[in-house]
Amino acid sequence: MWSYVPPIDDIRFVLDELLNVRRDWNEMPRLASLDADLVPQILEEAGKFAVGRLLPMNSSGDLEGCRFSGGTVHAPTGFAAAYRDFCAAGWPALACDAGSGGQGLPQTLNAALYEMLNATNHAWAMYPGLAHGAYECIRAHGSDHLKEHFLPKIVSGEWLTTMCLTEAHAGSDVGLLRTAALPRSGGTYAISGSKVFISGGDHDLSDNIIHLVLARLPDAPAGTRGISLFVVPKLLAHADGLRPNGVRCDGIEKKMGIKGSATCLLRFEAAQGWIVGEPNRGLAAMFVMMNEARLHVGLQGLGHADAALQNATRYAAERLQMRAPASPPGVEAVNPAPATPIAFHPPIRRVLATARAMVEGQRALAYWAAHLLDVAEFHPSQPARERAHALASILTPVVKSFLTENGFLLSSAALQVWGGYGYVHDFGIEQTVRDSRIAMIYEGTNEIQAIDLLSRKILADEGAKFGLLIETVRDEAARCRGVAECGDMAAVLDGLTGSLMTLTDHIMAGSVAFPELAPNVAGDFLRALGLSLLAALWARAARVAASGASSPLHRRKLETARYYFDYVLPEAQYRFALVSNGRRPLPWAGT
Amino acid sequence: MWSYVPPIDDIRFVLDELLNVRRDWNEMPRLASLDADLVPQILEEAGKFAVGRLLPMNSSGDLEGCRFSGGTVHAPTGFAAAYRDFCAAGWPALACDAGSGGQGLPQTLNAALYEMLNATNHAWAMYPGLAHGAYECIRAHGSDHLKEHFLPKIVSGEWLTTMCLTEAHAGSDVGLLRTAALPRSGGTYAISGSKVFISGGDHDLSDNIIHLVLARLPDAPAGTRGISLFVVPKLLAHADGLRPNGVRCDGIEKKMGIKGSATCLLRFEAAQGWIVGEPNRGLAAMFVMMNEARLHVGLQGLGHADAALQNATRYAAERLQMRAPASPPGVEAVNPAPATPIAFHPPIRRVLATARAMVEGQRALAYWAAHLLDVAEFHPSQPARERAHALASILTPVVKSFLTENGFLLSSAALQVWGGYGYVHDFGIEQTVRDSRIAMIYEGTNEIQAIDLLSRKILADEGAKFGLLIETVRDEAARCRGVAECGDMAAVLDGLTGSLMTLTDHIMAGSVAFPELAPNVAGDFLRALGLSLLAALWARAARVAASGASSPLHRRKLETARYYFDYVLPEAQYRFALVSNGRRPLPWAGT
Repeated sequence: MWSYVPPIDDIRFVLDELLNVRRDWNEMPRLASLDADLVPQILEEAGKFAVGRLLPMNSSGDLEGCRFSGGTVHAPTGFAAAYRDFCAAGWPALACDAGSGGQGLPQTLNAALYEMLNATNHAWAMYPGLAHGAYECIRAHGSDHLKEHFLPKIVSGEWLTTMCLTEAHAGSDVGLLRTAALPRSGGTYAISGSKVFISGGDHDLSDNIIHLVLARLPDAPAGTRGISLFVVPKLLAHADGLRPNGVRCDGIEKKMGIKGSATCLLRFEAAQGWIVGEPNRGLAAMFVMMNEARLHVGLQGLGHADAALQNATRYAAERLQMRAPASPPGVEAVNPAPATPIAFHPPIRRVLATARAMVEGQRALAYWAAHLLDVAEFHPSQPARERAHALASILTPVVKSFLTENGFLLSSAALQVWGGYGYVHDFGIEQTVRDSRIAMIYEGTNEIQAIDLLSRKILADEGAKFGLLIETVRDEAARCRGVAECGDMAAVLDGLTGSLMTLTDHIMAGSVAFPELAPNVAGDFLRALGLSLLAALWARAARVAASGASSPLHRRKLETARYYFDYVLPEAQYRFALVSNGRRPLPWAGT
Repeated sequence: MWSYVPPIDDIRFVLDELLNVRRDWNEMPRLASLDADLVPQILEEAGKFAVGRLLPMNSSGDLEGCRFSGGTVHAPTGFAAAYRDFCAAGWPALACDAGSGGQGLPQTLNAALYEMLNATNHAWAMYPGLAHGAYECIRAHGSDHLKEHFLPKIVSGEWLTTMCLTEAHAGSDVGLLRTAALPRSGGTYAISGSKVFISGGDHDLSDNIIHLVLARLPDAPAGTRGISLFVVPKLLAHADGLRPNGVRCDGIEKKMGIKGSATCLLRFEAAQGWIVGEPNRGLAAMFVMMNEARLHVGLQGLGHADAALQNATRYAAERLQMRAPASPPGVEAVNPAPATPIAFHPPIRRVLATARAMVEGQRALAYWAAHLLDVAEFHPSQPARERAHALASILTPVVKSFLTENGFLLSSAALQVWGGYGYVHDFGIEQTVRDSRIAMIYEGTNEIQAIDLLSRKILADEGAKFGLLIETVRDEAARCRGVAECGDMAAVLDGLTGSLMTLTDHIMAGSVAFPELAPNVAGDFLRALGLSLLAALWARAARVAASGASSPLHRRKLETARYYFDYVLPEAQYRFALVSNGRRPLPWAGT
C-alpha cells in the first residue's frame, strides 16, 4: 500500500541543470573522468535497491522492532540479509577512495543513495548510515595502523561503525562526559564508561562493530578541551580470529519510531582502544564525522517528506469525497460522480503543493551542501576549496535542522490527507511521522544547530563566511533580473538578503548588552535563512527551466517556483519579525 | 515520572476573573442558586480523580492497548474499574438536567472536568467523552419513549454511548453513507450496514452501549438531505434482562496513539433501532451532539498541551547542561556548577513560554465557548440566547481546530526539551505527541472545520454573526485603551479586527470569480482568527490582572500577555499574508 518511486528525474535536474555539478567535476582530477553514463546508472540501481529490498521491510520492521536477548541485539527479520546484498553490490564503497577499495564517486551520489534509503526504510539505513563518516574521520585523523587495519573493512561494509558520544548526564553538553581512557603499554588505551543512545551499538548485520568513542585521558582538562577520540572494536582481531573486547550492550530503548534501529546502552569495561588524532583534540576529529552525519540526518527529513508527498498524492487521486469547487482542465467531463478526488479540493492541493515545493527545494539545498564537500576536498584551487568549505560549514546546520523539522511537519501535514486512515498503522503515514521525529533530536538537537549556525558560523567571524552565502543569493538575483519568468523573484531575493544582513547586524550589535539575544532568536533566524535559500534555489530553478526545453518537468518547476514564492516564502517575514523582537522580555520558566 | 498538577488556580482565574461567569449565572434561574463553594470543590475533586485514578493507567494503557477476542473488546487493565468509580462519584451527571437525574451544573465545569481527564488519560476519557453529547441529542430530539428509556441510564453512566457516522467510503463526506434503515411494525427500524472508526464501539466498561447511528430510509433523497438518526443499543432490554441486538464488532484498529481507546469496525445486521427526530433530518439532530463533541476535542488538545508544558517545565528545571548566557535574578550565586538547568537557556525558555501563552489563552477561549453554550440554553433573554448561540457556533470550529493543532505542535515542541529521552517511551512525552495527533482528524478534520468556519459560519450570512465576534474584540480594545498595562495592546487588537474584516470582504468579493478562494485560505483564516481571539483574551487578562490583587498569578498573567504579543501573535500577520495571496495560482496535484 505504501509505495515509493525513486525521484531520478528530479535528482538529475538538480545535479545536471540546477547545480551543474559536471562543470566543477571537470576541474577536479578525481572526478573529471567520471563516465557520463555512470551517474544515471547509479541512481537507477540505488533506487532499485531501496524499493526492492528496503521498502518491503519498512512496516514489518516497525511492528517487529529489535529484540534484545542474551546480551545481544537482533535486528528485524530481513535486515541482515538486505545488508549483505548492500555490501555485495558495493554501496558502502561508493564515495570512498580507490586507495581503500572505494569507488571514488562524488558525495552528491552518496547523498542520492541515502535520500532513497531513508525514504524507504529509515530504520535500516541507520546501520550503514554512519560508516562513511567514520571512514572520513579515520582517514583524516587516524594513524597508518588504524587506516590499514580498519578502513578496508569499513569500505567493504564487512564491519559497521557507531559514534559513541552521549552519556546519560551528557547529551547536548558533551563536555560533561566521564568515560575514561587509561594508557596501556603498547600505545593502546583501556576505555571504561557507559554510553547511551548508541545507534547500531549492537546488532547482527555485520561480523564486527567499530565504535568511535569520546573519552577522557587521566590528565585531561575539564570540558570539551579534555576529550579524546578512540577506535574501540566490539571484537578484537587475533591470530585465530575475532575475540570479544570489553564492550557490553546493556539493553535497547523502546522508542516512538525507527523501531528497527537498535538504540543501545553500551558499557565499556577496560575495552581496548586506539586513539584517533591528538590527545584532547577528539571533538575536532569527530566533527569530521558529525558534519557528514548532519548532512545525512537532513537527508532523512528529505526522504520522509518525499515519501509522504508521493503517497499522499497517490491516495488523494484515488479517494473520492464531495465535489470540489473546480476540477483540472478537461477532467470535469469524465468525472460526473457525486464526489471528486480529494486531490481537487483546495486544502489538499495546498498540502501537496507545499510539500512538493519544500521537498524539491530542499533536495537542491542538500545536494548543494553535498557537492560543496567534494569541492572543499578535491578542487585543485585552494581559494575554491576554502570557499566551498566555508559555505558547507554554514549550510550544514541549516540542512540538518530545516530539513528535519520540515520532514516531520510535512509528514504530519500529509497524514491529514488520509483522514482517519492516516492514524492507522496499515496506511504507512503514521509510521513516517513517528520515524521522522527523531531526526530533529539526534546529531545535535535542532536548537543546538541553530545556535551553532548563528553564533559559531555567522557571528564568530563577524559575518565573513555568511557574506559568501549572501553573495550566492545576490548572484542568483542578478541572473534572474530581466528574465520574464523570474524577474520579480529577483526583487524578492534582494529583500531577503537585505533583511538577513540587517538582522545579523542587529543581533551582533544587541548581543553585547543582551547575551540572550542570539540564542533566543537562533531558531527563527535558521528558518528564515532556510526559507531564503530555498527562494534563491527556486528562482534559479525557474530561470533554468525557462531557458531549457519545455518539458513537463520544466513546466512543473516553473509552476512550483511560483507557488513557493506565493504560499511558502511568506513565513520568512514572520520569522524576521520574531528575530526583530528578540530583545523583548523572555519569561523565566516555572516562576 | 510523567506527572500532572490540576490547574485549579488558572481555571478559577478564567471563570471568576476573566469571564466572570457568575455574573451571567446570576441571570439564569438554573444556575443562579449555585453554591459559591461548590465550584472549587468540584474542580478539586475532578483533579483528584484525574490524577489519582487516570494518570497511573496512561502509560500502561498505551503499552497494553485494547484486546479484541471472541468478538468483544477488552479495554486495558484498570479502565473498567476506574469507570465504575467515575459513575459512583456522579461525574456523568454533572451537567445534565435534574429531571433526568443530573446535577444541573454549568458546561464550564464539565469542560474543566474533561480538560483534566484528557490531560491525564485521553484514551480512557474517550469512553465517557461522548455521553453528554448523546444525552443532549436525545434530550433535544428524542421521543418521550427514548428519553424515558435511555436518558437516566446515560446520565447515571450505566450505559455508555457512541456516535456512528463514518463508513469506509464516507469519511468527511457523510452524504455518501449507505447504512440502511427499514421500517418495522411497531414504529422501530431494522438497521443494516457497516461503520468504521467507532470510538468505544465495543468495550467492557459498561453493561450496554447505546449507538447513535446515521442511516438512510428506503425512500431517502441522495446526499446529506436523506440521512436519519437512530438509537441502536448493543443490547435490548427484555423482561428477563438484556439480550443481544444485531450489532457485531468486527475488529479494532491498530493506531498511532490513544491505544487504550477501542476504535471499532461495527456491523449492524437488521439491528433494532428507534428514530431520533424527523426522518431525513438526522444530520441536524446529530449536530447537537457534534458541536459539543467538537468543543470536547478542543479540550483534548488543551489537556495534552498543558500536560506537555507542565512536564517539560519540571524536566527543564532538573536537567543540567551547559551554562546559559543569563540566570534568573538571585539564582546565579547558588548554582556555581559547570552546567545550569536547561530551563535557563533561551531556546527552552521560548518553548516553555510559548506553550504557556498558548495553553492559558486557549483555556480562556475554550471555557468561553463552553459558557456560551449555557447562556445559549438557559438565559431568560432571547436576544442573549441568540447572541450566545451565534458566538458559540463560530467559536466551535476554532476551538476544535486551533486547540488540536496546537495541542500536537506544542507537545512536539515540548518533546525537544527532553532531547533523546523525549523519543523514549518511558518519559511520557512521545505518547502525548502520538495521542494528541488524532484530535486534528476526528469529529470533522481540521480542514473541514476551517471551511465550516469560513463558508458556513462567516460568509453564509455575509458576516452578520462574525460581526458579533469582532465586536467582542473591539469592546476589549476599548476597555484596554488608556490602561497602562494594556493600552498598546488595544491598538494591536484594532489592527487585527481591521485585517479580519478587510480579508473577509476580500474573500467574499473574490469568491464569485474564484470559487476556490474560500476553501484555499480557510485554514490560514482560522489560525489568524484563533491567534486574534487569544490576543483579545490576553489583553483582557492583562487588564484584569492589572486591576486585581498583585499576586504571583496576576504578575505572571501580565508577563505572559506581553510575551504573547511579542513572540506568538506575529504568526497572525503571516496568516493574513497567505489569505491575501489566496487568488494566486494553486497547482493541481500529481500533474
